Amino acid sequence: MDLKKYIRDISDFPKEGVVFKDITPLLGNAEALKVCVDRLQALYNSGQKVDKVIGIEARGFILGGMLAERFNAGFIPVRKKGKLPYKVKSKAYSLEYGADELEIHEDAIQPGDRVLIHDDVLATGGTAKAVCELVEELGGVVVQCNFIIELDFLNGREQLKKPVASLFNF
Amino acid sequence: MDLKKYIRDISDFPKEGVVFKDITPLLGNAEALKVCVDRLQALYNSGQKVDKVIGIEARGFILGGMLAERFNAGFIPVRKKGKLPYKVKSKAYSLEYGADELEIHEDAIQPGDRVLIHDDVLATGGTAKAVCELVEELGGVVVQCNFIIELDFLNGREQLKKPVASLFNF
Repeated sequence: MDLKKYIRDISDFPKEGVVFKDITPLLGNAEALKVCVDRLQALYNSGQKVDKVIGIEARGFILGGMLAERFNAGFIPVRKKGKLPYKVKSKAYSLEYGADELEIHEDAIQPGDRVLIHDDVLATGGTAKAVCELVEELGGVVVQCNFIIELDFLNGREQLKKPVASLFNF
Repeated sequence: MDLKKYIRDISDFPKEGVVFKDITPLLGNAEALKVCVDRLQALYNSGQKVDKVIGIEARGFILGGMLAERFNAGFIPVRKKGKLPYKVKSKAYSLEYGADELEIHEDAIQPGDRVLIHDDVLATGGTAKAVCELVEELGGVVVQCNFIIELDFLNGREQLKKPVASLFNF
């Protein structure tokens, strides 16, 4: 199944000159959605346990939850500042279109937990790098940063210095 | 399995005097997460097809994606204003802690689509009501508004005038 045809280019979003990769046609097609999760799961094939899957707000929540179930793991949301209700660890980060702060609950990761981080797109890597740091500060081990789309020209993979896997490179 | 013990009360979030129901311990436990999705799925037992599952940004994305897979349906995100990249329909709404605007892609629903709407919490019902209206304006049929938690004292169910189902009433 050619999943790429379910990803459409949107010009000038979120700002002029940017071509945004819109995955909503993929999510909206039941068969494409299932095949996409199958393939994201297959990207992690070490045979070793995943204890937690992190989804990064907001699009990372969608496939992140589905991946958690596939790996028989818990799901952990990483959110923008002020959205998580309990005690948090925070991390400032820069991203393709600006800067922001990410948070994780302090009790989300147990020391030694093997953590797979999922987001829809790897751009500059700033977001995922901040999440890796949060995981490690809580004593977890990042086993993979897992993406649907990787924007090669932004070199995010080099920033991360972690195992990176993605379905599509643009 | 007693899922309720995985939901914790957080006092004074997001503002003073509010007791917030935090589902992150439930999401973070692999077994509780799976049982929760099983039970959310079982809430819709008409035997009739679900074509699309809508998840409402942001917490509704997590279980919404998992429910879409269970029902062999497509997943449709409804998002806050300005977040969806393609052509949208918008709807202003009031919610427990203020007011906002929700958007759906114009091509997300086909006329006649049977749509299940999922969110984590039913509070006043303002958000879900706006989503029902968006679905109907696109020609879809709302088969259920599906929640983990329903806050009875806010009477959201009466606002909706649609089939409503929830796992926990507080």
